[in-house]
This record gives sequence, structure tokens and C-alpha cells, in this order.
Amino acid sequence: MRRIGIKDVAAAAGVSTATVSHVLNRVEGKRISEETRQRVWKAADELGYAPNGLARGLRTQRSQTIGFVSDEIATTPHAGRMILGAQEAAAAEGVVLLLVNTSGDAELERTSIEMLLQRQVDGVVYAAMYHRIVELPGVLHATPTVLLDASSADPAVPSVVPDEAQGGYAAVRELVRHGHRRIGVTVQTVDLPARQGRLEGYRKALAQAGVSYDPSLVAAETAVPFNTVGGDVDAGYRAARRLLTADQRPTALFCFNDRMAAGAYRAAAELGLSIPGDLSVIGFDNQELVCESLHPQLSTVQLPHYEMGARAMARLLALIKTPGRPLGPDTKELLPCPLVARASVASPPRL
Amino acid sequence: MRRIGIKDVAAAAGVSTATVSHVLNRVEGKRISEETRQRVWKAADELGYAPNGLARGLRTQRSQTIGFVSDEIATTPHAGRMILGAQEAAAAEGVVLLLVNTSGDAELERTSIEMLLQRQVDGVVYAAMYHRIVELPGVLHATPTVLLDASSADPAVPSVVPDEAQGGYAAVRELVRHGHRRIGVTVQTVDLPARQGRLEGYRKALAQAGVSYDPSLVAAETAVPFNTVGGDVDAGYRAARRLLTADQRPTALFCFNDRMAAGAYRAAAELGLSIPGDLSVIGFDNQELVCESLHPQLSTVQLPHYEMGARAMARLLALIKTPGRPLGPDTKELLPCPLVARASVASPPRL
Repeated sequence: MRRIGIKDVAAAAGVSTATVSHVLNRVEGKRISEETRQRVWKAADELGYAPNGLARGLRTQRSQTIGFVSDEIATTPHAGRMILGAQEAAAAEGVVLLLVNTSGDAELERTSIEMLLQRQVDGVVYAAMYHRIVELPGVLHATPTVLLDASSADPAVPSVVPDEAQGGYAAVRELVRHGHRRIGVTVQTVDLPARQGRLEGYRKALAQAGVSYDPSLVAAETAVPFNTVGGDVDAGYRAARRLLTADQRPTALFCFNDRMAAGAYRAAAELGLSIPGDLSVIGFDNQELVCESLHPQLSTVQLPHYEMGARAMARLLALIKTPGRPLGPDTKELLPCPLVARASVASPPRL
Repeated sequence: MRRIGIKDVAAAAGVSTATVSHVLNRVEGKRISEETRQRVWKAADELGYAPNGLARGLRTQRSQTIGFVSDEIATTPHAGRMILGAQEAAAAEGVVLLLVNTSGDAELERTSIEMLLQRQVDGVVYAAMYHRIVELPGVLHATPTVLLDASSADPAVPSVVPDEAQGGYAAVRELVRHGHRRIGVTVQTVDLPARQGRLEGYRKALAQAGVSYDPSLVAAETAVPFNTVGGDVDAGYRAARRLLTADQRPTALFCFNDRMAAGAYRAAAELGLSIPGDLSVIGFDNQELVCESLHPQLSTVQLPHYEMGARAMARLLALIKTPGRPLGPDTKELLPCPLVARASVASPPRL
């Protein structure tokens, strides 16, 4: 398991270690014959020599690694797509992710970030696993950082977040397009950017269709426990049941997320309403495990996790290359949430 | 955004950079007064100086980083728990994960692993996102490596995998315990360790209950596309529908995974069978997004992803500390899959 070193390459090629170093690092101005250069490269290849990245990092003052700090990687299926987006954008430039998880614990966050800084990361992507406002930890103030699925009260910190309002608009627009006018909303009670934005999109789509806003069609329920699958499904069930048992029930529901939509399916089944014949349902997030496990499969709007990860990394790498460049007015970048039409939306029933 | 260096600490403490280096690196045999040592530490703390991990790595020949190579991080919600398990086990020893993703592409895998080796990782966890047999890439042969949720035909490569047979046994035992004797199985057709093991557990639990094996109760369907949510749900629907419309239908179903169980829910609903009153259903995997989105919530058996990640990392770190230590007979370590009882299993209906 010994690591192949420059000495091994030198011995195999029959040259000095200095020559090997000059050839492999493409040092200019050394008189080394083409034949010798080729012999060194061949020996290095045959031995499987991996250049010493640590030593190279010391020379260039760039480690070509980026820290990826996340709060709750294990509890959400969103994490994978964000990490993959960031990682593929990084790999395209020969950069690797150093990953740490803070589990939302401030002390663990500080020590995790210190472990990154000790390894001389060139910058940090700081990712939240659902869209929220965060305060950047002090230990990061001297390191180029981009927020992913999070934004900061400090406008100087660049961030990449989903365009919640556009997504809410896209969802409700899809219902309007099928002829729905009486559209209920199920939403959870915690005040998050997602809640505000999606409701804003709902109102905009209604206004554009000439439908006046009716607050009795907005059913908010508290998810207990917060941000868990079961909690959301149950809150979605209660909210939908309330709307569907009202005097004048809606013909369609826009649900705050796919888990709440799963609860709406249960409420509809209990009340003998078939989806989409009697009731159209649209969700938000595009969690495939939920959307494709339901029958009929759930139409929804996609949170662009892969794209957000890729954009955050691209912005960070640009920031590192040209430090001090003004961020401009687009400090907070909103990425669109596209409609994913499956089978839960149809025309309203004839009354 | 300039990085605080040893020179800054030296200037603040009013000593030479050599003295700072000796103090911070705890070099023995240098005559430095206790008062000077304390002044240096204080200056380093106040400036937020992060020791140069690259330089330290060159001295110790340990980078305190572990490569985590995974094949399909974004397409499975299992990834997060495996990564978290590995990461927390690493962080406990001051070790950080360098993460690369291969997307199942051999060329990308080779270059990804080379990026890790260039950064002098002390070892590699090579993770598959579902339990399968892999061939270790040649480029890893000289690096300590542990397989996670995968095993190798080469018995010299240590691996950590779920105990599929025990998990299948636990699931069917739960059905038997509730009084079921006529238990159907829905399974997919691809020959994976999970399929073999879970069926073995099924037969063992039946045998133990004195129920003879009836191949007509095993319904295999091909998931198209393979290993996707929709593909599995649909295959599970077809398999369950076949069993439930047979002359003598089973009173309970053991489904190969939670997605196939979601398909069984659909088949039961179509046939007017209520769960668990008319039909008990148990899944496998414990994908919470599926289990808790279904009504009633799905009982299942958990794939121990967090635990597997943690064990793989612990074994790798032990291997790195004592290279050459014989692996012993437990090269392949099986972790138990515990029962997660929710609401989809009850006593069989009285006929």
C-alpha cells in the first residue's frame, strides 16, 4: 500500500528526481531532451504515479477543493441533487468537494468549518436543506462563500435560491389552464420564504385569471413534528379535509408540498372524491418517491436542486478567480421552478 | 479575503515566524519560554489563524481526508444517510470526507478517483447506492478501501452490506406473528443480492412457522425502467394484482421494497380490499417519503444506511492505522435490518 513517489519514477526512468519534477511539472527553461521527457511520462504512467496535490497546493496557494457545508444532509432527499449539481460543476474544473455536515448544531458547525479551513479550501458552498434565511457563521467571513437554497440578511453574501413565487404561479396557472376557478390552497403555518413566495404566486395566477382572492380557500395547518414526512402528510390531510367538507368545496387544490398533497389524496379518498375526475391536485417540490408512489401520479412543480447546486458552485468558482469583483445587483439569484405534469390535474367536474 | 498566515501571527506576537512554527506545531527541544508560547497561541486565536493543513499533511504523510466515491448519489434518498454515517464517524477522528460521484461511468470514475489520490486521501470508501457486487477499479488497488453497500468477488476487499436474509426473515416473521399463513411475495426480476437474500428470509420464516413453500405465491414482475420509483411502483402493482385476483388470494403481502408496496396499495384499493383489515402489507427499505405518504402508513424493514456508513468508515480508519493487519474472516460484514412497525399489518380477516 506504499504510495508511489517521485523517487520511484526517477529510478524507473533512469534519471534524477529533479528531472522528473521538471518534466511532470512542465517547468520551463530546462534542457531536457524530448526522449527523456517521454521516458519520464511513460514511467510515471506505468507506475500509476499520482502527483502530490498537497505539495502542488503549497506552490499555487490553491487547493482546488471547495468546502460543502450542509445542515441536514441525511434527513432530506434534496441533498443528493444539490450535492451532485455542485460536484459536477466543480469536477468540470478539476475541483473536488470536501463535505461536512453540521446537523444544525452551532458548535459542530464551527469545528466542521475549521476542519475545512485547515485544509485550505478555496471557498465554501453553505447549503440549507430547505429554503430559509441563515446567518453566515463568523468563521466564514474571510473565505469566499456562496449560499445554496438559503439567503442572508446581509446583501453582500451571494446566494442561489428557488423562485418560489414563480413556482407557485406555475402550479396555479396549470390549474387555471384546465378551467379551474375555485382553487383551494393547503399550506403549513411556519413563516418560511417558501410559504410567502408560493402564496404570492397563487394570488398572482388568480388575479391574472380574473378570480378574486378568497381567504376562506386558504387552509393552514401546523405540521407536527415540523418538516417531517408524517407531520406534513397529516397537516395536508387536515387542511384538505377542511376545504373539501366546506359548503362550497374547491374543484382543485394547490398543496404547499408533495407530502401535503399525499394527505390531500387521503382526504379525497375518505370523502369518495376521485382524483382527477372530482378533484384536481397539484403539489410542489417534485419528490419523486412521493409523486410516483401516489395513484394517480402527482403533478407538481420542481425545486431545481441540481441546477441550484451547479449555479452556486459556478458562482463560487468565478468569485475565487476574480476576488474583489463587485457582485452586482444579482447577489441573490432566483432559479425557476418548472411544472412537472403527471396525472392529477384535469378539467373540473360539471356541476 | 486574504488568508491569515504564520507571518501575521509572528508580527502580532512580536516573535519570529520560526518561533510561531515551533510553538503551534509543538516542536520538542526548542528553548521557548512559557510566556512566549502563550503569547503566540493568543495571537493565533485572536487572528483566527487556521494551521496550514497542506503543509502539515506533507510532514505527517497523512492528509486526514478520506475519499467517498459513490455511483448515483442524486438518484437515491439512501445516499444522505450513508454519507452522514460515514461523515460523523470520520469527524469524530478529525477526518473530513472528499466526495466524488461517478454516475456509473467508468471513465468519470477513473478521473474522479485520480482527483482524490492527487489530494493524498488516506483511504477510500467506495459506496454503491443499492446493494450489489462491484469490481474495485484498478486505480484503487494501492489505497486502503472499504466497500459500502457493495461487496466484491475478491474476498480480500472489506465490505459492509445489509443482512438481506435476516431482513426478509424479520418482515415475514412479523406477518406470521400476526397469524398469517398464506403470505404472498412481490419481487422484481433482476438478480440482485437483495432479491436472493430477502427471498431466502421469506422461506426461512415460513419453514419455521411450519408453512410449506408455495411458488405460486411468489409473483415476480420486471420494473421498467429498472430501479426507478415509477418502474418499481408499477411492477409492484402488477405483481400484487396477480396474487390478489388468484383463486385463493393471500391474506398478507411481503413486498420487495417500499415502492413495490405502494403499487400493492393501489391494487388493493382497486379490488376494494382495505389495508390492514382485508390485507396486511409489509415493505422493505424504510423510505420514509413512501412509508408515511401511504395510508395507512407502511410497516417495513429498515436498510441500515446510517449504520453501514459509520461502520465502513470505522473499519477504514482502523485499516489505515494498522496497515497490513489481517482482515480475518469478517471481511464481509452484514448489518441487521430492523423491523419498523407502522400501521399496515394486522391479523388476517376471518374467512
